[in-house]
Amino acid sequence: MYGEIITIGDELISGRVADQNSFFLAARLSSLGLTIKNISSVGDDPEQIKDVLRRALSRSRFVLVSGGLGPTDDDITAGVAADFFDLPLIEDKNLIESLKKALEEKHLPWIDTYRKFALIPEGACFIDPQVACGFYIMHGQIPVFFLPGVPAEVKRLAETRVLPLIMEIIGEKVVIKQRILKIFGLQEARIGEIIKGAGEGFDGLSIGFYPNFPENHLSLTVRAESEADAEKILNDVEAEVEQRLGRYIVARGEAGIEETVGELLTKRGLTIATAESCTGGLIARRLTSVSGSSNYFERGIVAYSNRAKSELLGVPEEIIEQHGAVSEQTAIRMAKGIREKSGTDLGLATTGIAGPTGGTPEKPVGAVYIALAAENACRVKRYNFSGMRNDITVLTSYVALSWLHRYLNDDSFLYSN
Amino acid sequence: MYGEIITIGDELISGRVADQNSFFLAARLSSLGLTIKNISSVGDDPEQIKDVLRRALSRSRFVLVSGGLGPTDDDITAGVAADFFDLPLIEDKNLIESLKKALEEKHLPWIDTYRKFALIPEGACFIDPQVACGFYIMHGQIPVFFLPGVPAEVKRLAETRVLPLIMEIIGEKVVIKQRILKIFGLQEARIGEIIKGAGEGFDGLSIGFYPNFPENHLSLTVRAESEADAEKILNDVEAEVEQRLGRYIVARGEAGIEETVGELLTKRGLTIATAESCTGGLIARRLTSVSGSSNYFERGIVAYSNRAKSELLGVPEEIIEQHGAVSEQTAIRMAKGIREKSGTDLGLATTGIAGPTGGTPEKPVGAVYIALAAENACRVKRYNFSGMRNDITVLTSYVALSWLHRYLNDDSFLYSN
Repeated sequence: MYGEIITIGDELISGRVADQNSFFLAARLSSLGLTIKNISSVGDDPEQIKDVLRRALSRSRFVLVSGGLGPTDDDITAGVAADFFDLPLIEDKNLIESLKKALEEKHLPWIDTYRKFALIPEGACFIDPQVACGFYIMHGQIPVFFLPGVPAEVKRLAETRVLPLIMEIIGEKVVIKQRILKIFGLQEARIGEIIKGAGEGFDGLSIGFYPNFPENHLSLTVRAESEADAEKILNDVEAEVEQRLGRYIVARGEAGIEETVGELLTKRGLTIATAESCTGGLIARRLTSVSGSSNYFERGIVAYSNRAKSELLGVPEEIIEQHGAVSEQTAIRMAKGIREKSGTDLGLATTGIAGPTGGTPEKPVGAVYIALAAENACRVKRYNFSGMRNDITVLTSYVALSWLHRYLNDDSFLYSN
Repeated sequence: MYGEIITIGDELISGRVADQNSFFLAARLSSLGLTIKNISSVGDDPEQIKDVLRRALSRSRFVLVSGGLGPTDDDITAGVAADFFDLPLIEDKNLIESLKKALEEKHLPWIDTYRKFALIPEGACFIDPQVACGFYIMHGQIPVFFLPGVPAEVKRLAETRVLPLIMEIIGEKVVIKQRILKIFGLQEARIGEIIKGAGEGFDGLSIGFYPNFPENHLSLTVRAESEADAEKILNDVEAEVEQRLGRYIVARGEAGIEETVGELLTKRGLTIATAESCTGGLIARRLTSVSGSSNYFERGIVAYSNRAKSELLGVPEEIIEQHGAVSEQTAIRMAKGIREKSGTDLGLATTGIAGPTGGTPEKPVGAVYIALAAENACRVKRYNFSGMRNDITVLTSYVALSWLHRYLNDDSFLYSN
């Protein structure tokens, strides 16, 4: 059951915008056991669009097209589709009514440009009859889906409507299930060694492996005859992989390390506060991106100035003068200070040189101190990261969260080295 | 001068790995004035690869292929290329020698698998004669480049060898220049209306338009005979668009609104501190993501608990009890409090219900208050955002930064409504 993905937009072929949609669609279709053989991107050019549609229909069992359904003049996909399939472009009255109603409810004015959303080739169906943007045409046995280009809309339409529709039209009766394990703190080659041979002997199982900076992801995919068979195999294989990789597995599925840490904090009934310098609020942001984080996250301080470090965290001015704002001593005082002042169980602190300026021979760009304080112990360590300002701050936030993850799994992390 | 990019790999069409290479290559080629008309991805499948090569050679002036040049069995591109061009695959003795020498210097053993790196179609040239991986073939007047799939190698080879080679072989004397304007605070359809007809009458100019949530981006692209001509046209058109869209243009080019705000703060010699609740540090993170932000960003408080709001920002407990932590009164006290306690010129605060839980009929999920305080004035407003937790917090941070942007352009923003 081969399919094909076509994305349309000058912004894609000129490299202004990365094509997230074909990646997302290919991944989701693959997880359902549907194989994509071609992905193509073309510009907002009627001849190019028709050419690639013609090729797709000659070799594929289903086609997904994304892009060019917006209200502006360069959005031409609906018109080109009508032309290609030799169907008149008609205005859907029902859709105009529901659009008007939706705008009214939001107290937004009607703009005549919106009319364009209701234009579809005669005989085409709206993918989601309640909203505009997105239709499909049956070309003989081949469904051709036309989706908008906005990634959030593509995701929503794909999950709620397009994937079920494709499975209904051309789906097989095989169950495909996948799990993703996210690994942090081990090099790619080392993970390969550790998991070599895992899952051997399981029918229909494949283990995939791909770097996703700064994590590495492991996918366990199984094709089975029933849901129960698939789950059984995945449970067994996941247990085996877990035994081998242990604490390096920091998250699963859609969740990130911040969700895992949040669950562990909740389970253990612990609270935390953060004191950040170089990460500038990123760790607080990541911890609070989890729903329910107000139960364990008490406060965060972004102590960018030295004055803020002294005033808000109680770092003695002499410490900063003597050792510098980026130093082991300052990091320890920040972690202990935020913990004491906020009355939480844990205090997590970062201070470093995010660059591109501000480095010295002794403390070059990328020099970062992380400190984690609990009641009777505090761990601190210097890292020397490389990369751009964003890489350094993202990596620092990851390592800091992985410290929390390790501590919450094993208290002795704060006492060992 | 149309070109084409082909990326090869099962991991691309199955959605396991995002295709960074075609995005990077398209962007770099566009910036040199070379137009890409098609981007295709196919799997590690000889017939598919030949098919897409055949199409590319029939319509393009140059072709870039990436992927499948590694040492493992599923790397088949060199063999398929030899077959396609009907050339024998030969082993390059010089390359084997230099590979052996490079390994010796690093005290690494020779593995026979490396031999594969030296196999290229007869008559092909190595892109970088010092290293393996990457060759090109002249098909008549059309250069066909075969690059590896590893993004870092593609970037290095492209910058140092491939782009100069393409310009040498097929470069035109046309100059192409582009500018990007980033717009926030206007609906897509409304922007379309406002800019309708802008840039008319300018030869070689095209205006593109694409949503990039929560911004909308406008691209001005011009083909001209000289750098000076191109710049002149772009200056004129940009001035026209600027006159129409005014303050809704929040950033330009690679920069984001945080850079624009940073420049304005620096220019006006003002400092800022933030007090965040629902955004959890995201505004501080965005402001400090800019290099040099320590000159104007003094501190940030993530006051997640009510205690933190009172202790760190001086919000009276009675205000929180009477009006709630998510209220106009609390937002005002947070903005004024952070400004006074940190001694900065400006204080920016957010408090709201990010969801998915915690909503009430009066203050549902998405109800957010933003407050901005200067010496003699404070503006506060309630917004009702919709979407997931992440959408709500990202949108809140955007609107908060756009308030700063407006105020820094026009002080009266704090006094008007």
